[in-house]
Amino acid sequence: MLQPHHDGSSRYVSERNPRLGDTVQVLVRVPLESAVSAVHVRTAPDGEQRFARARLARTTDTDAWWSATIVCHNPVTNYRFLLSGGPSKYAWLNGTGVHLRDVPDASDFRLVASEQPPPHWAKGAVVYQIFPDRFARSEQADRRTPPDWAIPAEWDDPVDTSPHAVAHQFYGGDLDGISEHLDHIERLGADVVYLTPFFPGRSNHRYDAATFNAVDPALGGDAALRRLTRAAHGRGMKVLGDFTTNHTGVTHEWFETATGPGGKRTPERDFYIWENGDYVAWLGVPTLPKLNHLSNTLRQGIFEDRRGVVRKWLGRSGGLDGWRVDVANMTGRWRAVDVNHDVARQMRATMGRHHPDALVVGEHFHDYTTDVPGDGWHGVMNYAGFCKPVWTWLREPDDTPNFLGAPVPVPVLDARAVVDTMRDFTSRISWQALTHSFNLVGSHDVTRVRTLVGEDARLVDVAAGLLLTMPSIPMLTYGDEIGMEGTFGEDGRRPMPWDESRWDTRLLDVYSGLISARKASTALRHGGLRWVHAADDAIVFLRESADETALVHVARAAHEPIRLPVRHLAGIGTGRAAYGPAPRIGKRQVTLPANGPQVRVWTWKPADGGPRPRRRRRT
Amino acid sequence: MLQPHHDGSSRYVSERNPRLGDTVQVLVRVPLESAVSAVHVRTAPDGEQRFARARLARTTDTDAWWSATIVCHNPVTNYRFLLSGGPSKYAWLNGTGVHLRDVPDASDFRLVASEQPPPHWAKGAVVYQIFPDRFARSEQADRRTPPDWAIPAEWDDPVDTSPHAVAHQFYGGDLDGISEHLDHIERLGADVVYLTPFFPGRSNHRYDAATFNAVDPALGGDAALRRLTRAAHGRGMKVLGDFTTNHTGVTHEWFETATGPGGKRTPERDFYIWENGDYVAWLGVPTLPKLNHLSNTLRQGIFEDRRGVVRKWLGRSGGLDGWRVDVANMTGRWRAVDVNHDVARQMRATMGRHHPDALVVGEHFHDYTTDVPGDGWHGVMNYAGFCKPVWTWLREPDDTPNFLGAPVPVPVLDARAVVDTMRDFTSRISWQALTHSFNLVGSHDVTRVRTLVGEDARLVDVAAGLLLTMPSIPMLTYGDEIGMEGTFGEDGRRPMPWDESRWDTRLLDVYSGLISARKASTALRHGGLRWVHAADDAIVFLRESADETALVHVARAAHEPIRLPVRHLAGIGTGRAAYGPAPRIGKRQVTLPANGPQVRVWTWKPADGGPRPRRRRRT
Repeated sequence: MLQPHHDGSSRYVSERNPRLGDTVQVLVRVPLESAVSAVHVRTAPDGEQRFARARLARTTDTDAWWSATIVCHNPVTNYRFLLSGGPSKYAWLNGTGVHLRDVPDASDFRLVASEQPPPHWAKGAVVYQIFPDRFARSEQADRRTPPDWAIPAEWDDPVDTSPHAVAHQFYGGDLDGISEHLDHIERLGADVVYLTPFFPGRSNHRYDAATFNAVDPALGGDAALRRLTRAAHGRGMKVLGDFTTNHTGVTHEWFETATGPGGKRTPERDFYIWENGDYVAWLGVPTLPKLNHLSNTLRQGIFEDRRGVVRKWLGRSGGLDGWRVDVANMTGRWRAVDVNHDVARQMRATMGRHHPDALVVGEHFHDYTTDVPGDGWHGVMNYAGFCKPVWTWLREPDDTPNFLGAPVPVPVLDARAVVDTMRDFTSRISWQALTHSFNLVGSHDVTRVRTLVGEDARLVDVAAGLLLTMPSIPMLTYGDEIGMEGTFGEDGRRPMPWDESRWDTRLLDVYSGLISARKASTALRHGGLRWVHAADDAIVFLRESADETALVHVARAAHEPIRLPVRHLAGIGTGRAAYGPAPRIGKRQVTLPANGPQVRVWTWKPADGGPRPRRRRRT
Repeated sequence: MLQPHHDGSSRYVSERNPRLGDTVQVLVRVPLESAVSAVHVRTAPDGEQRFARARLARTTDTDAWWSATIVCHNPVTNYRFLLSGGPSKYAWLNGTGVHLRDVPDASDFRLVASEQPPPHWAKGAVVYQIFPDRFARSEQADRRTPPDWAIPAEWDDPVDTSPHAVAHQFYGGDLDGISEHLDHIERLGADVVYLTPFFPGRSNHRYDAATFNAVDPALGGDAALRRLTRAAHGRGMKVLGDFTTNHTGVTHEWFETATGPGGKRTPERDFYIWENGDYVAWLGVPTLPKLNHLSNTLRQGIFEDRRGVVRKWLGRSGGLDGWRVDVANMTGRWRAVDVNHDVARQMRATMGRHHPDALVVGEHFHDYTTDVPGDGWHGVMNYAGFCKPVWTWLREPDDTPNFLGAPVPVPVLDARAVVDTMRDFTSRISWQALTHSFNLVGSHDVTRVRTLVGEDARLVDVAAGLLLTMPSIPMLTYGDEIGMEGTFGEDGRRPMPWDESRWDTRLLDVYSGLISARKASTALRHGGLRWVHAADDAIVFLRESADETALVHVARAAHEPIRLPVRHLAGIGTGRAAYGPAPRIGKRQVTLPANGPQVRVWTWKPADGGPRPRRRRRT
């Protein structure tokens, strides 16, 4: 609370989507207690370090507000602040906080200048992930013959996770099933449906596309997707697809051409990577040949071509509002070749030109921080900087969920380690990329959050509390909201039970309550993030927009009450409980008690008197 | 001492210069006290995280040695270790030490696979930097007329640092002057002479080249360079040049062609960057037009052409053994363009093909960590990860030296902060790049170390002690060894006094003693680096090669004695003082006393029984 603060939100930055050459005003809030007497902003235009003096814009009862201007001379401008005077005489403020010695630039704040900013709608969104085979089955589904690869299952059958069955067990969920249940999603409050692949393949997950040109008939075909996107748009909802840029299935038309008679002389041959006459496959899985992004014909075809994958399915022609990119982290990478950033940049640029209102988010299971420079994917799936840290805080200590491929369980850590991990990762990407990434506590690829936390379902409340109050786009997986279980990814892909007696309706109320709190709060949707407290069993932070402050308090267990000085929370007395119980607001102190796992969000109109960053006219 | 350890040295890695596809063995030393029961190595081939189990290779009295193999699947393979079992159950070991939570990959260890490894001689070298106008004046110099831009000065005149004079004051030092004084450099023990530019310009620093085709006649011309490189080579010494890849002078033949009659239609026009009809200049200095590295003709000319700058002056044709690259950090960067890494890669590749025995080191004043991926400059000038941290430890608190362009003085910090800063920067580049970077405590661009430390000259011993015992190539600036002073860069470029009565001969003995200790020790030249102690006024670390261990203890002031357990320093009793006083070696403890600023280096043949990493045959 008494730390100097800046972040990339509109409370501190005049322009979040600047263009090259723009001048941006940035503000820093420095508590008077820290006795800082001068502030400089440090940038590195064209690779050379440069300092500019900040001016004291305003002094309030509690803080000195310093103002500096930054020219977006390069596509990415990294900056941090040098605070001098005061006891330390020399302190850096960057995305991980205050440092009394030199630190590398990695956690500098960042401004990304682009002619193609991310779509406006995305920052307020809540995403609901659906694995089409398992969400809902329409009546039409009964009339279809299952595909030849399928092992048909009844909706209430248990998931068969044995190796021969796991990818082929077929429940027959379809897109019309989703259309029929948009009510549920709307009631929950989510407003974006993200579909894992709908292209035909030879598996229930369909990450082995046989074509990118058609919707799997087993899901209802192109017409069903049209019905779904229309129905969703009719409710003000968006729909995202899932595009595997890294590989196709072996039954893909391109691969069949490339390996068919005379295939060596076809353009498609060059769409794949060949070594010693054999194709390279994703992690050696022979059904998944890896695409060769050195092929301009391939890249032209999938990205630039009006009828290619990316453009065909977006906007008026296809109905989608964006893409999640599967295996984004490996795309364009093989041995000595690494065109990953080029691919991301090309996909972003194409979408920016033709579908500026579409979102693109890359899958990334580990350290994504160097893969989101700002001009590629708008954001990533934030496993490393959100999901895993949350797991280390909330997982059942006696159970042993390993994170994807890890040889040992995630550790059980205290709140300090959780927040430090979050900051370490999220500080390394721009605020823009962070707020266009998906936060998640689970997905179709990992353990269900309900299973993760063990006995006490109220720990799911805490996970959901963090998910729905932090920056980034919250993404939940179908069924998380009713307490669906699963000990690992495939086991978690159980069919959604539509018999509500099997639902944890208390949990559903928690999720919808939190979503509705987010939807009602500009601070939660668009505000900055100021950490206030993180120790053992409790985390407290502020989300701050120009007109609203939200105080968020989450606790995994009962803990000593936390006391905060009222004068640093000017206006808090006028607030309201957006979620959970109210704090005790005294004359000098705000007290946050806690009796066990719980979530508390209190919002008010700030009266701190700080200045607003001023937009400049573009030159 | 009781921390698990790995670094990129031959004690822990079987092959420091692997090629793509090679399998490399890596060892980790884990103290038995930490009770680790399993070790995995984590890599990210093609961008996907992957774990491989390490095997327990040997257990000694004190340590478990784990062994893992890594395939160099990509040009850069980053790796770190996951230690499990023991109290923490989950600990990462990377280049900054042990972490009990997830951390980004930035400080992972790194293997760089390249067909063009850095030259073998460089790792043992000690570099002596010379500013030619100020080192020594031969008799021939008296017979030359000073250039028309020059403000001639007598050798004993004070440096005139006023703006109009600073770049034009001309003492007339020349290359033959250097040849005549190689004795001094050889006696000191340095074996590489690095010359700041010898191309003609219109300044004493010559960073404003008028041509890259000839040595400035004022320095003796091409023949004098030939004499100097021959004389140096005759003594087993190397010579490095200084190439400004970022800009030329306005009097450069290319720029004159580009701006002369019909210049707009010449190829040279495209060698520079034009905006609104005007050229772009380095930091806006009008005499220094910035080169346009988007021009293939330029790049072909300077890098690939046999008679171009890089190749002409290397090897048999030019006599040089490598290049220091001026303003390497800004080269190829302007607004939306950033081809910096491409330029570095091309220069490295050309040199690797035609002059595999030549070194290339880039200038970099701040965070270099993302600019040395491994396939560009062999190394950088390590201001950020060595010079500045050393300054914060040793600078006179009452004086106020600012580091280049910084608006406030460097802070005074304790040893913990110094070592943490060093590790933060150096852990982010490969061991190969680190050991081919220049460590330095000053240069022609910054305050002289003798001035920096204030009254007590013994603090220079401490700076020199760190310089000459740590990994990286030590670089000193002419005259540092005799206590030359200067409060900032230009003021430090005083003419070298050849009247030895003006020398601090005690300091000269310190430098030559330390250099000779380094030259005599494989551990100091080639060993790994294991931190042992860093608090307040003392720093202790081990340098370890297969056959030798060096214990280094530096102290800026008297401090409490430091006690280390003998059993973790097996064989220490058989050692010898390589520099400074011996430690007190008891039955159980080694005691490191300190009575004030001092340096102590003790070397011995290790008896720890650890395994050697085994080289595999290349496939």
